[in-house]
Amino acid sequence: MKIALDAMGGDFAPQSIIEGAVIAKREILSPETEIILIGKENIIKEELAKHNASATDFTIVNADDVIEMGEHPTKAFTQKPNSSIAVGFGMLKAQQSDVFCSCGNTGAMLVGSLFTIKAIEGVPRPGIAGWFPKLKGYGIVMDVGANADCKPEALVNFAILGSLYVKHVMGIENPKVGLLNMGEEEGKGDLLSQAAFPLLKANDKINFVGNLEGRDFFNSKADVIVCDGFTGNVVLKMGEEFYEILKERNIKDEFIDRFDYSRVGGSPILGVNGNVIIGHGVSNPTAIKNMLKLAEQTALSKVADHIKQAFK
Amino acid sequence: MKIALDAMGGDFAPQSIIEGAVIAKREILSPETEIILIGKENIIKEELAKHNASATDFTIVNADDVIEMGEHPTKAFTQKPNSSIAVGFGMLKAQQSDVFCSCGNTGAMLVGSLFTIKAIEGVPRPGIAGWFPKLKGYGIVMDVGANADCKPEALVNFAILGSLYVKHVMGIENPKVGLLNMGEEEGKGDLLSQAAFPLLKANDKINFVGNLEGRDFFNSKADVIVCDGFTGNVVLKMGEEFYEILKERNIKDEFIDRFDYSRVGGSPILGVNGNVIIGHGVSNPTAIKNMLKLAEQTALSKVADHIKQAFK
Repeated sequence: MKIALDAMGGDFAPQSIIEGAVIAKREILSPETEIILIGKENIIKEELAKHNASATDFTIVNADDVIEMGEHPTKAFTQKPNSSIAVGFGMLKAQQSDVFCSCGNTGAMLVGSLFTIKAIEGVPRPGIAGWFPKLKGYGIVMDVGANADCKPEALVNFAILGSLYVKHVMGIENPKVGLLNMGEEEGKGDLLSQAAFPLLKANDKINFVGNLEGRDFFNSKADVIVCDGFTGNVVLKMGEEFYEILKERNIKDEFIDRFDYSRVGGSPILGVNGNVIIGHGVSNPTAIKNMLKLAEQTALSKVADHIKQAFK
Repeated sequence: MKIALDAMGGDFAPQSIIEGAVIAKREILSPETEIILIGKENIIKEELAKHNASATDFTIVNADDVIEMGEHPTKAFTQKPNSSIAVGFGMLKAQQSDVFCSCGNTGAMLVGSLFTIKAIEGVPRPGIAGWFPKLKGYGIVMDVGANADCKPEALVNFAILGSLYVKHVMGIENPKVGLLNMGEEEGKGDLLSQAAFPLLKANDKINFVGNLEGRDFFNSKADVIVCDGFTGNVVLKMGEEFYEILKERNIKDEFIDRFDYSRVGGSPILGVNGNVIIGHGVSNPTAIKNMLKLAEQTALSKVADHIKQAFK
């Protein structure tokens, strides 16, 4: 098992990334799991030394360039073939790693996925799934930002991708799929949800439970909530901010604590030919540690292969 | 000042409605304010008696019919001219009341507004503004459900309507308007927000501050957040549910407590020729009391007249 990690991506890279990798290696990953650190070799070695970690415990792959957070994704990805993100995708495509993780430029991660390992044949729109805490466990919301505008067919495709992810990575059998909407009854909603409802209802690859409302994010009605990437992005960020505010106000609660992004560590891109995880830009070492654990779990689950099978 | 109140609308009507009206009359409304209770006269009198309230302290207007929560709005409104909602709009149109409030069928309240007092000339899409608690004070999100699908021009119209409401009813001078989006930079977003941005930026009737993200609901970046009714409805209900969960988990906090819908009491329909407030279906007496206070404030502010002036 090989996990490739972008050492240069994120607001606190490379310090937080390397520190998180060292902790993960020491504390939670299987001894057989190899971490491949991608970035400027001398910097990576310096950072490892700070934590008394031996460079020989890691595989270091040099990448001279970095795609910055504010750069235009497509431009940056194509013009910087030696960036840590481009090198990471090259390795994933060449099967030199089983999974690639980065906290860098989200757009560049999407572009990299679509340009190198590419969308799985039959998947119209790959998307990003966001973990969402529920009163019991977690569910996912998909899409959370890859596809701002969606056709009804894209929501069906999110439902299938999300169901496979939840089944294979989160271990939930026959996951329930709900359509985010503004009313419970069939026929409610905007044009998109009205058109998506009958398609979801008729699809025999998923366990569709009907419309959900904004009040249903945290209950057990569904394991997978599908919506366009605009709405998903708004609710994800609203949830994150809620957590930040409550933390600042010293409110401690087991449910609220699970809104801490660093507990999950990252969001998968689903529907592409490989395992890709996007971490939060502000990731701290705990987030990186948990991202690496999630990466190991994701690669072991072979979810990308299961998705390929399902779309054959 | 005359406030017309639908005594029959809401999950706990007429009990909660009448109890709330009695408390409001005794505790917080100006002595000159008259409450008009619309509904089945004998039932209203019975309920008033339970609270030792004299029927002569209220104006009772009989309405034999009730539009139930699950009924089709347009059908119910047109086929039940003697329903409390239809009678309420009739009085508002005839200027026999200054404001009409109901916790009944939201769709019927919208239909009633558009069919009787009608949209203000020049307003393409009236909408519902939802009060949203901020770390400091409140702001509004518009639309929260009247318009599931919107054109860019509708968002501009929400921005103007919302700004006038916030100025005249909430007392915020030169209110800041933000466009709900999935990124801060101009050019981000779905087709709707991309098209709305330049229109908002060019409009000199509003104080546009740019794009907002899901994390900006609670900070001071904007007093008015504009979005389509689908997204607004989802975030409003998500916020409400968050509050309910935290309440059940015994978390007490001044900021969180302001998510309690009963503190505000209701959401205005903006852009129609009159003052209309929709209360939450589950309204308890406290919510009704606060809805009546908001109704008094709304009528005093003459916000509907200010909106008419602005669209001349």
